[in-house]
Order: sequence, then structure tokens, then C-alpha cells
Amino acid sequence: MSKPHAIRTELDGLLDGLVEGDPFPPERELATRFGVARETVRQALHELLVEGRIERRGRGTVVSTPKLVQPLSLKSYTEGALRMGRKPGRLLVTWEDVAASADLAEALGIAEGDAAMHLERVLLADGQKIGLESTYLPVARFGGFRETFDPTTSLYAAVRATGVHFGSAVERIETVLAAPREAALLESTTAMPMLRLHRRSLDIEGGPIEVVRALYRGDRVAFEASLTDRD
Amino acid sequence: MSKPHAIRTELDGLLDGLVEGDPFPPERELATRFGVARETVRQALHELLVEGRIERRGRGTVVSTPKLVQPLSLKSYTEGALRMGRKPGRLLVTWEDVAASADLAEALGIAEGDAAMHLERVLLADGQKIGLESTYLPVARFGGFRETFDPTTSLYAAVRATGVHFGSAVERIETVLAAPREAALLESTTAMPMLRLHRRSLDIEGGPIEVVRALYRGDRVAFEASLTDRD
Repeated sequence: MSKPHAIRTELDGLLDGLVEGDPFPPERELATRFGVARETVRQALHELLVEGRIERRGRGTVVSTPKLVQPLSLKSYTEGALRMGRKPGRLLVTWEDVAASADLAEALGIAEGDAAMHLERVLLADGQKIGLESTYLPVARFGGFRETFDPTTSLYAAVRATGVHFGSAVERIETVLAAPREAALLESTTAMPMLRLHRRSLDIEGGPIEVVRALYRGDRVAFEASLTDRD
Repeated sequence: MSKPHAIRTELDGLLDGLVEGDPFPPERELATRFGVARETVRQALHELLVEGRIERRGRGTVVSTPKLVQPLSLKSYTEGALRMGRKPGRLLVTWEDVAASADLAEALGIAEGDAAMHLERVLLADGQKIGLESTYLPVARFGGFRETFDPTTSLYAAVRATGVHFGSAVERIETVLAAPREAALLESTTAMPMLRLHRRSLDIEGGPIEVVRALYRGDRVAFEASLTDRD
């Protein structure tokens, strides 16, 4: 077995005996304990960081909270977080009207140049920053949110409260590196892989509700889909 | 608008006028044309590389083939590739029996230490390496594949040919960086984000068929899910 693989197995074993928030031994100590070069340990620790098993806290390293597993469904982020026993939260970054580009207009079923409401929020789980979500809604349909919607609460709940029912959505998942602004808002770096989600949701009559572009920290979020043969 | 954002918009515009395989201008030329620092261009080009919009070919850079969009469904990789008009292929890397660990045994419905067939293949689309797939099957159920299965063909077709029907699966999607061995097999690097897929498939009676751990090149593959309110 190669040394990188062997040290990873040792570190996985070490993690099995620890719980979230526990301090994780420093590089130097691990190199001595397992008799390998510090560079080999450094690589293995970087893997664990990217996978969200450990994280830096102050000058040390601790065992991470398990990833938030977000179900792929028409349910909201809020419901996904609560299902995992995590407290959802949101920080408002941007709330503005924009003139819809040709692509956005087509996706929202409005004319090019018509107003779209853009809502950009940092998604939190137990206060931890886990994603950055940009939602675009047709103002003609949801303009009333300017007066009624509290942007620290669930947007899906607000949409449903207007009598609109989510009927279907297409979601696309990719991986990207964060741009500097996104990395800063998520307290991450441009070298950490992120999950990019693109979603378009329709109501039960097929009318467009929203277009979403979200960026999730790859070390803190996973997606899960339950498939059956009806698919 | 910030310079990194502005240069990215210019490059996106440039890409809109090109088709796959077209040469993409070099860094120096772009810096001169748009009047920005080479470092700024370099960052934007790196973003386009990670997103799979451009790729290195020889000493130059060309416009990439669009990503393979893999539907999240019980259908096989083969069907997903064909749907996109891409020719699926597979290169055998490993084919061996292993003694199932406790976790694998539980997932496959066998006893710890029982034989599991491990099939590791590089997935191709039109000859391009796009993913590395490790499948584990219970030997007690599919041991006959040793004599009958051609590992360059669809495993799902072979499973169905034994009279087994796929009934349900749970898929988890994460992002990771490739380990050196994986990066080498996929002709990528350990700095490029990958999509990691974990899947467990059951037959229509709920009996385990397979456990899959696959790694897809993030610059060449996206996943797509169609959701409806039955979910």
C-alpha cells in the first residue's frame, strides 16, 4: 500500500474515534506518530479539509460537523436543514430589481427588459455559512414581496403563502471553484471546490416561479436523490 | 464593474462566437486586446478551464465539447451518454474479488468477509475520459459475470439480462479533489474539482444489486434531476 493511502487510512481511523469539535492533532505530531514525511501528512490533511472532515479553527484544527445532506426535491433549503436537525438561517446580501436579460426573461416567462426581483442570500446552518443563493423572481408576479417578505425567512413558504404551488423543477449540479467575492462571502477560498446548483421551478400549471443559481461549500454540503423506477 | 468580472464577461462573449474545437486566443493576446493585466486574464482562463468551457490541447487552448449532462435516474451511464448523442465507452482498470468489509457487506446484503466483485472502469464519451467508476456486486448473485460479461459494455444491460430489474437507488453527490492515482487515470490534476457520486441500487424486491463509487471530471460532467411534486 502506498504511503499516501496508508496515512489516509490511519487518519480515517483516528477520526472514527473522535466527535465533532474535538481537536485534531497537528501535522508535526502526525508525521512523528506514523513515521511519514510532513509533506505526506500535509496532503492527507488537505484531502480531509476538502472533504469537510476537519476544519481550521483559530490556529488549530478540529473535527467538522457532518455535511448537510440536502435532498433533491421541491422542498426548500429550510426543510432540508430541519430534516437534518440543523437550524436554518439566511443573511441578506442583495435585494434589487434587475432588467431581465434575454435568457432570464425566457426562463421566467416575461419579456426581455421586464423587471426581475433578485434576492441574494448567504445560507446558514446552525450559524455556519454553507451556501450563497441567488434567486430571480418575476416582479409582475411577486412584486408584493417588497412589502411583505422578511428575507431572513423561507422564500418557499412566502411563495406558498401567495397561493402558488410548486409543481416541478429541473436542477443541474456542477462543481466549480468560487470566485473571490463568493469565497469571501462564504468564508472559504478560491481553491476549495464548490457545488453549483442551477434550478428553475414551475407551478402546477407550468408557470415559471423562479430561477436559482446557488453555490454550496463542497466541504459542508452534499446532495442526495432517491430514485425509483417511475423515473 | 470589477476587472475580473469584466474580463470574464468579455471572454464569455468571445466563447459565444466560437464552436467546440476552435482555437482560443492565448493569455498575452487577450491581455492586450482587453487592456488588463496578464494575471487577471490568467485567473479568468483558469475559471473557464475548471468549468470545462476551454481545455488545453498540445501547446494551445481550444473550446471544449459541452459537458455531458448525466440524468439522475435508474438508467445507466450508457443511456445517459447516448441521450446526449455521445458514444459511451469503458476501459477496464481493475476486476477482482474482494472480501467485503462490514460496511460493504451490509450494503450488499451479504456477510462480512463474503466475496464481492469489484469492477473499476474509466468511463469514456466519444473517447474522452470523463469518469472513473468502481462498482461492487455480490459474487453470490452475479459471479457468473466472470464468464459472460464483457467489461467494455454496459453493466446495467448485463444485470437486466439476468432477469434482475432495477427498482430503486439512493445517490449522493459531493465534490472532492482527485487523489493522484485517480487524476492520472482521468488525465486530470489533483487541483481540479471532481464530482463524487455514491450510489446503492436495489431490485424491485428490495434486494441489493450494487454499490457504486464514481468520480466524474467536474469540467466534463454535470448532473441533472427532474423533480415533480410527487417527490
